[in-house]
Amino acid sequence: MKEQILYVLRTSETAVSGQELSEQLQVSRTAVWKTIRQLQEEGYQIEATQNRGYRLLAGPDMVSAWEVGSRLMDFHFLEDIYGFESVESTNKTAKELAEAGKQAPFLVLTKKQTGGRGRRGRSWSSAEDGAVMMSYCLKPEIEPAKASVLTLAAGLAVSEAIDEVTGLASQIKWPNDVIIAGKKICGILTEMSAEPDAVSHIVVGIGINVNVESFPDELKEKATSVFLEAKKRISRAELIAAVTRKFARCYEQFLIRQDMSALKEAYQVRLVNLDQVVQIERGGQSYRAVARGITDDGALLVEQKDGTMQEVLSGEVSVRGVYGYV
Amino acid sequence: MKEQILYVLRTSETAVSGQELSEQLQVSRTAVWKTIRQLQEEGYQIEATQNRGYRLLAGPDMVSAWEVGSRLMDFHFLEDIYGFESVESTNKTAKELAEAGKQAPFLVLTKKQTGGRGRRGRSWSSAEDGAVMMSYCLKPEIEPAKASVLTLAAGLAVSEAIDEVTGLASQIKWPNDVIIAGKKICGILTEMSAEPDAVSHIVVGIGINVNVESFPDELKEKATSVFLEAKKRISRAELIAAVTRKFARCYEQFLIRQDMSALKEAYQVRLVNLDQVVQIERGGQSYRAVARGITDDGALLVEQKDGTMQEVLSGEVSVRGVYGYV
Repeated sequence: MKEQILYVLRTSETAVSGQELSEQLQVSRTAVWKTIRQLQEEGYQIEATQNRGYRLLAGPDMVSAWEVGSRLMDFHFLEDIYGFESVESTNKTAKELAEAGKQAPFLVLTKKQTGGRGRRGRSWSSAEDGAVMMSYCLKPEIEPAKASVLTLAAGLAVSEAIDEVTGLASQIKWPNDVIIAGKKICGILTEMSAEPDAVSHIVVGIGINVNVESFPDELKEKATSVFLEAKKRISRAELIAAVTRKFARCYEQFLIRQDMSALKEAYQVRLVNLDQVVQIERGGQSYRAVARGITDDGALLVEQKDGTMQEVLSGEVSVRGVYGYV
Repeated sequence: MKEQILYVLRTSETAVSGQELSEQLQVSRTAVWKTIRQLQEEGYQIEATQNRGYRLLAGPDMVSAWEVGSRLMDFHFLEDIYGFESVESTNKTAKELAEAGKQAPFLVLTKKQTGGRGRRGRSWSSAEDGAVMMSYCLKPEIEPAKASVLTLAAGLAVSEAIDEVTGLASQIKWPNDVIIAGKKICGILTEMSAEPDAVSHIVVGIGINVNVESFPDELKEKATSVFLEAKKRISRAELIAAVTRKFARCYEQFLIRQDMSALKEAYQVRLVNLDQVVQIERGGQSYRAVARGITDDGALLVEQKDGTMQEVLSGEVSVRGVYGYV
């Protein structure tokens, strides 16, 4: 009910009476009043005036299922949002919920991650205070080989959402790091459970440095946050809702042909590697080439010294930019 | 210790004294005696003679970690064998053990499966009495797309092991059903957990109808067992050990180039579809062609009416033999 009350208060231009809320939500006025009080205790500033009713003045920077859900009441993509106080990692929880048969797409949120992981089992330290840690779980009817394309679509969605909510101009480092001024602001970890010819479920884990005020010395050169770049705090729930809208659109575009064809242009506009020299390491050998874009299958297209084009897959190579700041 | 004692007794041509066992295993004679008694209680016929020592006369048809382990003491492939009385499915348990960080390759065995599954979530009913239900967990450094090749290698290993232990002549129906006289004797379900460009772990679940004496009417035309074909009961542990040896070899051959090149010939000799008409269903359309073998990537190679060759992937099509008995 918190979700619905927040939605009604947020979308109403005037105060809403207890009577109106009770009618709209089909619950008793006592239930409305109790829920309002709970929200107030959680830090929501809800003004209550005898004659006019309730007005939402401000809310806390809260990552909860109801806070995010209240911002997505009019957007039909997620079957459910699962919010936690603390989990080992949102990807792990999402996988468990998928195995337990929960309907997809769904979103897992948490306030705290005790064992976040990056790609290939590397540790991922999320600055808890002010970070967003979230995982989408999807059950698309695709072959496992297509999952790498989906991670590019996710990177695009996050980059677009960050720009929309913050006014910043983020870019994408292939395949799916979102960066601002050369520093990483978001990491994405895609994991799937599959049979050889069919995906059972895919979990797209997204970590965004939002209201993070400082980084430890060893990360300062590599990482940044919305707060550090935009010099303001933003509502994480609003960002999560925006990412969800963008992600739903990118996901649907991806599903049409199970490739990047419909998203390639939007992706390449943000591609920081475009027309830049990249260092490619393949099978022990290392060489430089110029990135010219991506293919429909999400591979990086590079121009070699002799002018021939080559497709680079993230599985085979690590791409390091040599443009100074990565 | 059961494993070691069974190994010593089974591989010794003469009786083994308690003193010898105690020295070889570096345990007390009391411990040896206690374990021997436990084994006797489990149904092992161990003859104990005052002067000469212990002799293993016969063992029960037991699917346990120690019974199988005692037959693989001299074969170094598995890091561990986990045996259970009852699990929902050995694939599920193997995945959980992998997530918990157990070292691969390992094998999961069970006496009873309460929720066995087939491909694409279909139910898999295993006739419990006399069936083998097992899952290997592997952590190969391969791309997800290569997993489909591994399932073919697994089918080959099971087919070879069944023939070796039973004297029967099994065949493979592409991609990996093992059949005898046109009826299914083994089903394989391969599942993986992966990032888009790297497999985390692969679980290969294998169900074999071994000492199954009868099938319900609706399965009689489709399924058979070692017992029904060979007219004798065989040791399931012996078969599991044989499958493990064959599987280890096929897996290692697969890993060299991550394809079927080294196994193709052995596979095609057993391919029941070879030079047979198969019915292919692709995107709503249905047509016939003649199977001519497999590619290095594990696709079925079919010759169309106009003489052109086509590669068929299991994800896109269902192949039905039209040679009468499938």
